[in-house]
Amino acid sequence: MIIVMSPDSREDDVALVVERLGERGYGHHISRGEQRTIIGAIGAPDHEKEVVAGQLTALPGVERVVPILKPYKLISREYNPQPGTVMIGNARFGPGHVGVIAGPCSIETREQILQTARAVKEAGATALRGGAFKPRTSPYSFQGLGYEGLELLAEAREETGLPIVTEVMDVRQVDRIAEVADCLQIGARNMQNYDLLKEAGRCGRPIMLKRGFSSTVGEWLRATEYIAAGGTLDIILCERGIRTFEDATRFTMDLSSIAVLRRETFLPVVADPSHAVGIASLVPPMALAAVAAGADGLLIEVHPRPDQALSDGPQSLTPAAFAELMQQIRRVAEAIGRDV
Amino acid sequence: MIIVMSPDSREDDVALVVERLGERGYGHHISRGEQRTIIGAIGAPDHEKEVVAGQLTALPGVERVVPILKPYKLISREYNPQPGTVMIGNARFGPGHVGVIAGPCSIETREQILQTARAVKEAGATALRGGAFKPRTSPYSFQGLGYEGLELLAEAREETGLPIVTEVMDVRQVDRIAEVADCLQIGARNMQNYDLLKEAGRCGRPIMLKRGFSSTVGEWLRATEYIAAGGTLDIILCERGIRTFEDATRFTMDLSSIAVLRRETFLPVVADPSHAVGIASLVPPMALAAVAAGADGLLIEVHPRPDQALSDGPQSLTPAAFAELMQQIRRVAEAIGRDV
Amino acid sequence: MIIVMSPDSREDDVALVVERLGERGYGHHISRGEQRTIIGAIGAPDHEKEVVAGQLTALPGVERVVPILKPYKLISREYNPQPGTVMIGNARFGPGHVGVIAGPCSIETREQILQTARAVKEAGATALRGGAFKPRTSPYSFQGLGYEGLELLAEAREETGLPIVTEVMDVRQVDRIAEVADCLQIGARNMQNYDLLKEAGRCGRPIMLKRGFSSTVGEWLRATEYIAAGGTLDIILCERGIRTFEDATRFTMDLSSIAVLRRETFLPVVADPSHAVGIASLVPPMALAAVAAGADGLLIEVHPRPDQALSDGPQSLTPAAFAELMQQIRRVAEAIGRDV
Amino acid sequence: MIIVMSPDSREDDVALVVERLGERGYGHHISRGEQRTIIGAIGAPDHEKEVVAGQLTALPGVERVVPILKPYKLISREYNPQPGTVMIGNARFGPGHVGVIAGPCSIETREQILQTARAVKEAGATALRGGAFKPRTSPYSFQGLGYEGLELLAEAREETGLPIVTEVMDVRQVDRIAEVADCLQIGARNMQNYDLLKEAGRCGRPIMLKRGFSSTVGEWLRATEYIAAGGTLDIILCERGIRTFEDATRFTMDLSSIAVLRRETFLPVVADPSHAVGIASLVPPMALAAVAAGADGLLIEVHPRPDQALSDGPQSLTPAAFAELMQQIRRVAEAIGRDV
Repeated sequence: MIIVMSPDSREDDVALVVERLGERGYGHHISRGEQRTIIGAIGAPDHEKEVVAGQLTALPGVERVVPILKPYKLISREYNPQPGTVMIGNARFGPGHVGVIAGPCSIETREQILQTARAVKEAGATALRGGAFKPRTSPYSFQGLGYEGLELLAEAREETGLPIVTEVMDVRQVDRIAEVADCLQIGARNMQNYDLLKEAGRCGRPIMLKRGFSSTVGEWLRATEYIAAGGTLDIILCERGIRTFEDATRFTMDLSSIAVLRRETFLPVVADPSHAVGIASLVPPMALAAVAAGADGLLIEVHPRPDQALSDGPQSLTPAAFAELMQQIRRVAEAIGRDV
Repeated sequence: MIIVMSPDSREDDVALVVERLGERGYGHHISRGEQRTIIGAIGAPDHEKEVVAGQLTALPGVERVVPILKPYKLISREYNPQPGTVMIGNARFGPGHVGVIAGPCSIETREQILQTARAVKEAGATALRGGAFKPRTSPYSFQGLGYEGLELLAEAREETGLPIVTEVMDVRQVDRIAEVADCLQIGARNMQNYDLLKEAGRCGRPIMLKRGFSSTVGEWLRATEYIAAGGTLDIILCERGIRTFEDATRFTMDLSSIAVLRRETFLPVVADPSHAVGIASLVPPMALAAVAAGADGLLIEVHPRPDQALSDGPQSLTPAAFAELMQQIRRVAEAIGRDV
Repeated sequence: MIIVMSPDSREDDVALVVERLGERGYGHHISRGEQRTIIGAIGAPDHEKEVVAGQLTALPGVERVVPILKPYKLISREYNPQPGTVMIGNARFGPGHVGVIAGPCSIETREQILQTARAVKEAGATALRGGAFKPRTSPYSFQGLGYEGLELLAEAREETGLPIVTEVMDVRQVDRIAEVADCLQIGARNMQNYDLLKEAGRCGRPIMLKRGFSSTVGEWLRATEYIAAGGTLDIILCERGIRTFEDATRFTMDLSSIAVLRRETFLPVVADPSHAVGIASLVPPMALAAVAAGADGLLIEVHPRPDQALSDGPQSLTPAAFAELMQQIRRVAEAIGRDV
Repeated sequence: MIIVMSPDSREDDVALVVERLGERGYGHHISRGEQRTIIGAIGAPDHEKEVVAGQLTALPGVERVVPILKPYKLISREYNPQPGTVMIGNARFGPGHVGVIAGPCSIETREQILQTARAVKEAGATALRGGAFKPRTSPYSFQGLGYEGLELLAEAREETGLPIVTEVMDVRQVDRIAEVADCLQIGARNMQNYDLLKEAGRCGRPIMLKRGFSSTVGEWLRATEYIAAGGTLDIILCERGIRTFEDATRFTMDLSSIAVLRRETFLPVVADPSHAVGIASLVPPMALAAVAAGADGLLIEVHPRPDQALSDGPQSLTPAAFAELMQQIRRVAEAIGRDV
């Protein structure tokens, strides 16, 4: 890190910073410009960097502290330079391929999930999604079928062979869901629920971490590091839109995050256009855009009767619309050298 | 709610909406303008409103659905028109008063928390804060002393008589923390951790719910409704800044939320300038601004040695700076008819 | 519009709203629900709608006024349902096609603009861009060559046959630039410079209106209506990213705006990935994503020596990188049924 | 500035940066850490800094360039450390004082502006505002009375003795408005209309520059530097809210900007709660908060009949509400050691 001293700092302010760096095990390096003195800290013991940066900022005469190294390690491309592949059951997410996870927002009935599973399988989806535990903004809305829903999802896997992805919201559910699901999804609202991240990292299943809708890519990567520190690198990141002032769509899909993540981490990245835009007619163009931008996969909401859905009806595709979209996805994927 | 039909909708699209409303137990009312037909839904059974709105949006010919009623009830001023008071131990938060909760971000050592408790008590704080479990953006940063920290906080209460407020992050901690603390705080990152909200509502202690840094006031109120639905109305809301594009401060403090909340709910509202701005020298003006805007209380970080703090040093006031601020707070509170 | 009365409004509050609507030439329609009374205003004389809505909001007992009709007309699909084509010289922007406007941020020297023009022409660009007047955040930065730059741009057109697009910043420049350029661009910072919009609408050339980086799609369309009201419908809209909290890129490209605009207006829409992301290596994936999302064209910054550029070097492609990107653009365009 | 090299940069990448710095007149200083090499540039010729930073970013092996010095000079506290005072006619804006500029959004009729001027004068306002040229989001809304409105405003000054502030939108109006008005206001939408800023700086009158609603404080200061570079330091900055995701208010008032500006510049800062919140009942608490936060003045919309206003009715105070607010403003100002 680099410590920028304010123009009115004094010699003993500089000396105090240097002394403090020494106490914390850092070397240093002073550069005196015409208007600012700058102190470089060298050889930082990694795990304390942020704490020390905060402490230095509180010293007299310090204008600001500029971090130089990345605040994540296990998941960074500096640690592992090659893009990696993560398998969810038999579905592949990584270079050269586009995996497609489709299904309803919530599992509502046996008939609904089985019918959807068959339809998305036939259209070419490679995995099945469905929520058993639902984070709803109102306590009076449908909260999901719980473990009963999970059983229905497993039954749909049985019948179609599609691996299953479902959300975990509560640390107490992690182990039981991990016994059944092929991949545990952590939703946007829980991206910084650190206890949940730690438990997820230990559960032995691949984890899909959705971006918090108000998190920078840097914060998302730091949350991902929590999972990695828990013990697994089978992590898929999922862009699902961020909150902005624009109100024509539910969130604003930040497709540039895909390319930014590619530069920073070797983990695969998928995109969820359904939650990002929240309007079914806008899902196909954004799904194609995500593929063109280099996503390793997609997460798409499909419901046999969107106008009867207990959640997210307005953004769900019908099976017919999904089948049509899959054909376009194949063409765009091929244009950029990937298969589906 | 009101259903706005698109200009190219047909008669049978309108008929289908009307039929669906009937099935769901709503009356209706059609208004045909020159360019749009509008259908008013009447007598809505409350708990299904959002689900039905979503389903209607997915019907053909529907341009959008406009909700009319508020999506929260127990905590609304329509339910209870008088501003209320919540007690944290012997500290009062409500009309005519400004409660001041002060203390360090993290409890670090026995000496540190006792020394801070004495100092803030002497300066006039009415409650003590301190984190035992810390949500940190990096898994490699100090994560708090845990239950040992909680014991130290209780010891500080013993000595000073100040009631104590501490954060709960994990559903599994709720009961044990509730045995000791006078008030449980739910942090911004967990504002939509619904399982935690439900458990908190049942624990028998007052809850302080911080605003998610990317949540609208409406979403914050809906999250609050989760706590209320759990069984308590002893809830204090805490504005702590929202995420915006401005980078001169850590977050942007949205003081207008105080007046907006006053209009919507009877619950008391406090403000946390320390987390909002993240820079110690900006805390005093924002604390005074919050009081002038009508806050029922403040949450202020104080540390005996900010340059040695294990978290949030740059935004912590020294005991001396806090004592000076308390005097200004008293003057501004008095100017608007409150005491401290 | 619909006027929602507050729960504590009285009969004479309703009567006053009705009386006011009558005075302003509106019919009405009252719907009394259990918790709210709602008044529908019918047959609104268009041009006063926003003024009247503001006045009604200020009346006693009014909770809020919900607009129903769109605040733009000439440019809406309700006015003209078919997607249209706009020609910039011989370059086509509209259905079935992807136009590519390439060139440097600023025109710096005769050699630089001629060399770039030849290179982008050869790679397949259909129009040439280059700034003669530059809006720079610092008054001490290079401000452009002015009219001399415009002459150099015309010379590049002469040699390559590419039509030219350049920015106008000041009402006093409109006519003189319109004499030379094939298309006048209005930049993001001037999207709500209404006097400039009005002058541009009268100048007789096609106008490219960039989205203000903090404008909703709705505000952008209203600004576009200013140009249309000035007398032309030869308008191209350009998405160039919006300001968000994300700091890994310069702005956040909102590709869903393309599909939203398609629904609202018949005007063609292009995308400028260079300004949106601000980093050359991220431009190609975002350019491809924009094409897949349905953009009618692209605006791409190309500079023969990005490391010598007087502005926007970090986001400029070299001619070689641009040529490679053009090949990928052709493949993705073809995959979704467009040619370049 | 500091150049951070990427971990895979090579020795000749470093050499090229050093060579380039030399060519541009900078000295340098290399610091080799374990994971990154960092190059400090020394003795930068100010006016080219941003251009050179951009060029260096485009060189191979450069990860990023971190600016160290502030990008503004004439208006910075480093240039002039004491907070200054700006006079608008006989109204003072600076330390120890709170100036209050009140009046209608638009000048509508002679009677309306005279009546308002008398009322705000009596309540204690120190200057009168009123718009003659109005930037409206719709071309079909009332656009202001133009120069006729300016004459009416001057008449109100004549009668009440209040100095007058009015907005200028178009470079062609600057001189004529400057002949009459005591202060020219540049609105949020024109904050980066650089030609207008330059003309304003030359006109000989004090300028009030409103913050662009999507501008950081840093960008706002750079825009201010344009005015200063034009020749005047009689500039008042006006916080008027920024755009965020929150939709309960029109904009989000960023009161921390006042303290941030105080640290960066000696220019006075005022606040406009009316435009920030857009709802009359929220104006008083935010006006008081602004005073407590240290604002040197306020801008408040007052209209004799808000429900008849041609613009901004919902946010205008009645003369009676304004008079009551002035009394509270006096009390809060006094509590923090200022008079009104």
